Amino acid sequence: MTEQRVADPLAEAAVADIRSGMLVGLGTGRTASRGVVALAERMRTENLELRCVSTSHATETLARFHGLPVMDFALVERVDYLFDGADEVDPNMNMLKGSGGAMTRERIVAWAAERRVYMVDESKLVSRLGERTTLPIAVLAYGLAAVRAEMRNLGLNGVCRRTIKGELFLTDNGNLIIDVAMGEQDLSELAASLNDVPGVIDHGLFLTEADEILIERDSGTIEKRVREQ
Amino acid sequence: MTEQRVADPLAEAAVADIRSGMLVGLGTGRTASRGVVALAERMRTENLELRCVSTSHATETLARFHGLPVMDFALVERVDYLFDGADEVDPNMNMLKGSGGAMTRERIVAWAAERRVYMVDESKLVSRLGERTTLPIAVLAYGLAAVRAEMRNLGLNGVCRRTIKGELFLTDNGNLIIDVAMGEQDLSELAASLNDVPGVIDHGLFLTEADEILIERDSGTIEKRVREQ
Repeated sequence: MTEQRVADPLAEAAVADIRSGMLVGLGTGRTASRGVVALAERMRTENLELRCVSTSHATETLARFHGLPVMDFALVERVDYLFDGADEVDPNMNMLKGSGGAMTRERIVAWAAERRVYMVDESKLVSRLGERTTLPIAVLAYGLAAVRAEMRNLGLNGVCRRTIKGELFLTDNGNLIIDVAMGEQDLSELAASLNDVPGVIDHGLFLTEADEILIERDSGTIEKRVREQ
Repeated sequence: MTEQRVADPLAEAAVADIRSGMLVGLGTGRTASRGVVALAERMRTENLELRCVSTSHATETLARFHGLPVMDFALVERVDYLFDGADEVDPNMNMLKGSGGAMTRERIVAWAAERRVYMVDESKLVSRLGERTTLPIAVLAYGLAAVRAEMRNLGLNGVCRRTIKGELFLTDNGNLIIDVAMGEQDLSELAASLNDVPGVIDHGLFLTEADEILIERDSGTIEKRVREQ
């Protein structure tokens, strides 16, 4: 059997600082999945001792397939290192996430993590969040109509996310996602308002989570942005 | 068949202003259940046309048993009138709720309601919330350990609620409850801090919800407190 090794500089950069003994949080989505593969490769070739927690069922399945040991996050107080993707990044390291519907778990693990590294390709860079995509809001199904009415008061109009089969999309936690078009709102105020609406479980605004963002330029080079403390 | 009519001045006062055509929110718990019975009695004897939404499976079952029509709250934007109970009430109409674990749904319906009336007996009056009981915090099971660590940072120590069989108690939404002892925290700050913790779905502090509180005195008289606008 020959070893097949495909270079992925972005993913390799995202997992480069992970050391033996660490408890690693695994993000969700296509870019985060590249990090999972790169980490599994390092574990194999360098004989690292790692424990991982996953932010979604999908990532857990992928991680186990590649041989990473995944433990139950419910038992974990602190994570040493988290890598994850993002759907949009603005010049102030604000991020929009949740196209995969996993942002609630992604945020909880981010809060528990010592160091949070996000990966994006150049196409995800925007001058203002909401330029390329909608803002996902996770809502308790019980309060759907009332929460939507409350959101209209905040100037947000959206549609319930559905599967390609036309059924309502459910998150891993059993909540619905409303995808809303963003306007010119102040991001911090919007996040605070959404946090205050009962029935809103979470949303896609990640304003304080990123410690570092790795950007894959079209030229192939990797650029790193670090939040000033 | 003779009609058996037991006077319940507190419950009767709580439903006295409900008129035909209203959409009524039904609270959860022992005191709220007395309101359900009193409302069903009024509907029968006065031929009221009512629609109801319920804040729990338990209340829905009770309401249907007594002949009240219960519809799905997920389709409802606004509720005309909500009655509910509370576990503690302080002199500023701040309330502590959630001993039944239904506070998330109770709060969503309260936000959607035009007029919110709460009923308590005199024993629930406290000079400071947390005197008689613990503060329940509804937590996503996924984030249990990390959320508890975050809560310790807020000075809150608590235990996971269990059923009498010793199993973890799950809310109607499938979340866990952590019951914490309250200290001398500022209530608004505490509520805001809890709202900001990812993985905290809701908590038992109801600081702005009560428009009116009806108090059943040991003497049998009913006292009404109304929030000044």
